[in-house]
Amino acid sequence: MSDEYALALSGDAQDLLFRTARTANSFADKPVTDEQIRAIYELVKWAPTSMNQQPLRIVLVRSPEAREKLITHLYDFNKQKTSAAPLTAILAADVNFHEELPRLFPHNPAIKDVFGDETMRVPVARFNAALQVGYFILGIRAAGLAAGPMSGFDQAGVNADFFPDGEHQVLAIVNIGEPGENPWFDRLPRLDYEDVVTTV
Amino acid sequence: MSDEYALALSGDAQDLLFRTARTANSFADKPVTDEQIRAIYELVKWAPTSMNQQPLRIVLVRSPEAREKLITHLYDFNKQKTSAAPLTAILAADVNFHEELPRLFPHNPAIKDVFGDETMRVPVARFNAALQVGYFILGIRAAGLAAGPMSGFDQAGVNADFFPDGEHQVLAIVNIGEPGENPWFDRLPRLDYEDVVTTV
Repeated sequence: MSDEYALALSGDAQDLLFRTARTANSFADKPVTDEQIRAIYELVKWAPTSMNQQPLRIVLVRSPEAREKLITHLYDFNKQKTSAAPLTAILAADVNFHEELPRLFPHNPAIKDVFGDETMRVPVARFNAALQVGYFILGIRAAGLAAGPMSGFDQAGVNADFFPDGEHQVLAIVNIGEPGENPWFDRLPRLDYEDVVTTV
Repeated sequence: MSDEYALALSGDAQDLLFRTARTANSFADKPVTDEQIRAIYELVKWAPTSMNQQPLRIVLVRSPEAREKLITHLYDFNKQKTSAAPLTAILAADVNFHEELPRLFPHNPAIKDVFGDETMRVPVARFNAALQVGYFILGIRAAGLAAGPMSGFDQAGVNADFFPDGEHQVLAIVNIGEPGENPWFDRLPRLDYEDVVTTV
């Protein structure tokens, strides 16, 4: 190990967030509280977005009616585990995030006007909200909970049912809770450093 | 504080990754080694992507020629700080990530064929690579380094110069190093929990 660079992050934290943390496919029958979600948000809100845009919006799906509606849009392999999860959140991009920029970027409130064109604004919203989806998944793990992020669902259906005004676009859906019985699939292989990183 | 939920992640780790970590705009004159980047990658590679796609690709821009070429594509406010950064990385999505799926998703190698349609595949690649950009930014911080992620550049120009075969699309550029003199701008406000999280 002597030729390896030691990270500043403790080994315990590396394990909690990355190494032993796993995508959960079953959850314990134990509620996830608003206080837990608040604690996660109050941590991950500090991670960076372009020009402090913060376009991620989170919908906690708690009522039986909303849960039922959401599950109709999931692909079959995601339905059962979501029905049994203590909490499911819809993660979406606010495509009108620029309306908030005068208070989020107060030294240059006119930056809002740069985003007047929707064809340019929507991809920017989706990219920055996707960064925040990544931060939020790690935040769930930071809370000692397991995340079960999913992309296997009908995006247009979720948007029509949950965001009918067109101002938000779903990016991912995530189950949240303590892991249940046999919660993990086998760990899948990762690309080697040499596959991913090149130098020019 | 008694009504707050305590995160499992230690306070030191919270600070290192989120609370005291900041986007750097100047860097110390100290190299960032390949060993450091490797250590970051070997940590963040474990964070999840949809169907284990792992579409992020990282180009370390080290040669003077490549650095000069990259800087021509940056918006003016990003040129000087990038010229002075010890290392700059281009973060891109591999839009042909599906070619790797037989080895990354070995229990169902035919999943590759789901992604035959490029108009469906490219947004999937960009979304999952954006998650990984978020993980990578936090990984830089986990290494005790500061990240300076940027979106202010000519994407088409970077793609033409660095990815002429069209198989990769740049998502972000990030400066990496130890913070230099006066490295931080004032911290910008974050949205309140109530602005971001709703319950249905």
